[in-house]
Formats: sequence, C-alpha cells, structure tokens
Amino acid sequence: MNARPEKLVVVGAGSWGTTFAKVLADSAIERGVVEPEIVLWARRPEVAEDITARKRNTDYLPDIDLPACLSATTDLAEAVAGAGLVVLAIPAQEVRGHLPTIRAHLDPAAVVVSLVKGLERGTDARMSELCAEELGLPDERFAVVSGPNLALEIARQEPTATVVASADPATAEWIAVRTSGPYFRPYTNTDVTGVEICGVVKNVIALAVGICDGLGYGDNSKASVITRGLAETARLVESLGGQAETLAGLAGLGDLVATCASPLSRNRTAGRHLGQGLSVEEATARLKQTAEGMKSVSAVVDLARRHGVEMPISEAMNAVIAGALDVDTLAGLLLARDLKPEGRS
Amino acid sequence: MNARPEKLVVVGAGSWGTTFAKVLADSAIERGVVEPEIVLWARRPEVAEDITARKRNTDYLPDIDLPACLSATTDLAEAVAGAGLVVLAIPAQEVRGHLPTIRAHLDPAAVVVSLVKGLERGTDARMSELCAEELGLPDERFAVVSGPNLALEIARQEPTATVVASADPATAEWIAVRTSGPYFRPYTNTDVTGVEICGVVKNVIALAVGICDGLGYGDNSKASVITRGLAETARLVESLGGQAETLAGLAGLGDLVATCASPLSRNRTAGRHLGQGLSVEEATARLKQTAEGMKSVSAVVDLARRHGVEMPISEAMNAVIAGALDVDTLAGLLLARDLKPEGRS
Repeated sequence: MNARPEKLVVVGAGSWGTTFAKVLADSAIERGVVEPEIVLWARRPEVAEDITARKRNTDYLPDIDLPACLSATTDLAEAVAGAGLVVLAIPAQEVRGHLPTIRAHLDPAAVVVSLVKGLERGTDARMSELCAEELGLPDERFAVVSGPNLALEIARQEPTATVVASADPATAEWIAVRTSGPYFRPYTNTDVTGVEICGVVKNVIALAVGICDGLGYGDNSKASVITRGLAETARLVESLGGQAETLAGLAGLGDLVATCASPLSRNRTAGRHLGQGLSVEEATARLKQTAEGMKSVSAVVDLARRHGVEMPISEAMNAVIAGALDVDTLAGLLLARDLKPEGRS
Repeated sequence: MNARPEKLVVVGAGSWGTTFAKVLADSAIERGVVEPEIVLWARRPEVAEDITARKRNTDYLPDIDLPACLSATTDLAEAVAGAGLVVLAIPAQEVRGHLPTIRAHLDPAAVVVSLVKGLERGTDARMSELCAEELGLPDERFAVVSGPNLALEIARQEPTATVVASADPATAEWIAVRTSGPYFRPYTNTDVTGVEICGVVKNVIALAVGICDGLGYGDNSKASVITRGLAETARLVESLGGQAETLAGLAGLGDLVATCASPLSRNRTAGRHLGQGLSVEEATARLKQTAEGMKSVSAVVDLARRHGVEMPISEAMNAVIAGALDVDTLAGLLLARDLKPEGRS
C-alpha cells in the first residue's frame, strides 16, 4: 500500500468546512508537523482570496483568525491532488456533482471524510453510499465526523468532543490523530450508518424544535420533541443496520442537544422563522447557508417509508416544508397522543 | 378491596407541588367531576391562607391563578385522611419525618405518588424504598411521576408530557386518568427504579451544566456533559435493575434536556452561581427552594460506589459541593479524556 500523504484538504469553505480546516491546522501545529499543508477549496474566488491572503473568512466566520498555514483555492483538482485526507463540507445536494473531479485526482491511499449532514434527494443516498458508488472507494477509506459541533464555538476554540466513525478502526484512528488538539477531542467508533443517520435526522428534528420556539412553546415541549425525535431516529438507524448505542452518544444525543439548544443552528433558526409565520421561501432567504433539514426531509421520509419505519415528526416536517401542513396545526400534533404506555412505537 | 376515595392531596406547596395540584384540579374539571376535592398541604400558614382564600401562591407561583376547587391546610393528618391519592412534593431530606403522620391517616386503598427527585442522605434510600419501609406500602400502591416538567411552564398551561411509573399498570393508569388534561399528558410505564434514578441524577448533571454556563462554556461542551451524564445515569439504573429504555424516554432524556435547557431550573441555576465563583453557601442562599442535586449528590456517589458503578460527573460534583474541588479545575476534567473509542465506560 502506498504511504498516505500528509496534505489535508477540506472541500467547502462554509462555516463548518473552514472551522474544520482550522482544527486540522491547529492539530498539526500542536503535533509539531513541519510546514503543514492544509488546503481549503472554496467555490467563490473572493472567499479563497480572503482565506489565503488575509487568513480570514469574513462571510462565514467573522472575527476568527485562521492559522497561517491555511491556504485556499477554487481549483478542486489542484486541491485534491496529493492529499491524504479529503474532507467533504458542502451541501448534500452538491456532493455528486463534485465527485468525478475528486475521483480523477484522488490519491490511491487517500481517506475521504464526510461532514455532510444530509441525504441526496431522489436517490435517498447517504454520503457513504455516494462515495462508495461514485469514487469506487472501499469502506476502509471512508469516515464520517459528527458530534455536538457548532462551528462558531469550535472556531472560538471552546472545548468540544466529536465522533470519527469508520468501518476500519485504523482509519478512524488516523483521522482522530489529525483532528485532535487543544480544544477538539475526537472519539472513534465503527458505526458509519448510525452516525450518518443521526446527523441527517438531527437537522429535521431541529426544524421541529425551532418551530416550537417560533410558536412560543417552552422547554418542556421542546424536550418532548427532542426525546421523540431521538426515538424515531433510533428506529431508522436500527432498520438500516446501525447500532443503538450510537444514539446515546455524542453523534446522536450530543449533536441533537447541542443543535436544539443553540441559537447558532441554521436548522433551528429556519424552524423558528417558520413558527413565526414566514413561508418556506422567506425562511430560506433569511439564511446565509443551507439548512440541510429543509433539503433532506423528503429523502428521510422516503427512506423511512421504504423501510417501514414510523417517523411522525419527520413526516410532519416534510408536510410543512411541502406546504401541505400549517405550523399551527402541527403544534397540536407534536404532543397529542392518546393515553398510552411510553414506548418506541 | 375498598373503593379508592376521589379526594386528592398534594403534600408540599412549593412551585411543583402547587402546580401538580392545579393539574389534578384542571383534570377533574375537564372530566366533569362534581365538586372535586383537591387539597394542598403547606408547611407555612400564610401560604395555606394565600391558596385557600386568594387562590394564589404568591411566593412560588406569582401571577398564576389557581383553580377555585383547590384549598390548602397546614394540618397533614386532616389533609391525608380520606384521600385516595397522596402526592409527595417536599424535599427528599424531609420525607421520612412526615411519613408517620401519613401512615396513621392513610386510607387503606390510597395510592402514594412521589414527585421527589432526591435520595435520603445517610441511607441512600429512594422514595419508593422509604415509602415501602415507613408506610408498609405494597408496590402496587406506589408510583413516581417524572418528565420534562418545569413547574412554571405547566402552571402557565404550556403543553407538557410526563411519565407515571408504577409496578402495577392499573395504578399508573388510575393516576394517568386523574392527571390528564388539556395541557398535561401522562404516559405510563412500570420502571419505578429507572424513573426515580433518572430524576435524582438529572439534578446532579444539571449542576454540572450550570457550572459550564457560569464558566462561559458553549453548547458543544454542555451537550457533551449532558450526553456523558445520561451515560453514567444509565449505568446506575442498570446496576439497580432498572430498564435501559427509560433513559431514552421522557423521564430520562426528556427531563434532563428540559432541565439543562431552562433558565427556570434551580439546580442549573445553583451550578451557574458556582461556576461564577460563588461558594456553596452563597449559591444555596440565593435559591428560594431546595436544589436537590446539591443535597443528594453525596448519596448518589455513595450508592454508585456501593454498586461498583463509575460516575465521574457525579463524583466531580460531589467534590465541588464538599469544597474539595475548585470549579476551574473541574472544567478541564469534564472533557479531558485520552483518545479512545466512544463507549459506555
């Protein structure tokens, strides 16, 4: 096997992609790597220029100083060539379009990491499935990173834990070493499917919690939605062969709680706008970046139906996003059930 | 078996006891009960007078109008006599002292419900154990009610779900009918031990989350503490014979998330004061009511040690409350672990 190069690349210069590149850079600095090569791919030239020349990403991470060893380019082929780690940090619906270029330049030993928390519409594909199919990537060269990871908090270097999941523990460990640093602490596991699904459905549940917020509901109601949301996530994870323990961990409960607690979450913010009476178009227009929950909810529901899994909160969110259900009607549905024993169904 | 009387009594007129009495009253009104008899026992005559004469509990629930059918007394014997339901809503350390009077006047068919979220110091006893021992109460006449139940939100009639747990499903159902109403929705289960332990440890975890708050930590850190806190709660529940599913439900995850999200939580508030540099005495003095987490943490740790269960967050909280650990030192401990696979130990 070829040696895996130490050049590390992040594809996507939004708030999370940029922050993750900073994590990689700060980890390399702490480990004493000589002249670390950390590259961000940005779609827009002005963002790449901002990062390379001024070590800033003014649009997405104002006031954050980026490490000196970080550079950016708009040339995806150049970015990927010679990299040992290629991190995907773009909206789920844009991933497939970039994979041919990545495939053409991917180092034969490179590992691909997904930070993407969405499903592809139409195919319902998870990012692991897309990469296996379109990159011809074996399982042991793919990983997903997910956890209670609000980008801005990490960019501010507040202590944060995360999960690195790969079918191959050695791959997860290789990535963990390269992300570990003074403020970022990775834990490894092997449940790629569970971690991916938790990340995707979390954004849908965050929409629901945001709607509760917008309607003026309190923490009791929101905690109930979070609890039931995690239960329906668990059903989908288990039906797809993922592990129940993942739900109780940082990529399950941890990520859901952080997202639903934070005013920084795009998905929760989008939900709040909907709860306050904005239309889907108006709520979308107010966000600077993609709210994956709004984009992926139809694929989540489609996947659940194909596997015979009941996901009432996701179904309700899908109806709201499709314009088929009013948020005021939704409010009653979120808690209204007959007196019954508590359980998973 | 004797018929169970329809008089319903709540022992303790703090914010949750008073709110629960309002829930019972509003449920009775909705069910069309003729002249419902709902009685609150208050320690202080001025509180009883406030409730009976003005239908107000000015100290603990300002601005909330209580139902006309609610009355209060300071005479515990009179309150309990002829009641079919006796709800305990007093601090855990005060329960044992009241049980002889309750036992002397308890109707032979009466059900006792605990809203208490603490353990008795010295004995480490759960409220179910105390009641069995001191009231000679069989399991089928005991229940615990717990969930994401911030009292003030329920008093404001915001929609809330809860769990009624009893070894006897018929008992749980009997209580569920009498608490169900327009804004309060009970679910039943049989895991008394799991529900009790979740409620107790939750208050300890809320202290830790409050300390993070006071130290200025963000939602990523707090979500990690919540996730690890639920994991150590799970270990204790399982070692005591409770059920893992309870952790994922409203009385586990739901209650923990609501408490840790809310500025209304006494335990989180107490932790925030500690994180901001107040002493244990100063933090206690600022609270109007008992923060059960501060009182029970030594018993939680003692119980865990006796059963060989690792509870690092509870241990750390115990050391902080005992004055043996500084909160600034604690902050590092909450997230610092070696790179390792994510798991329950």
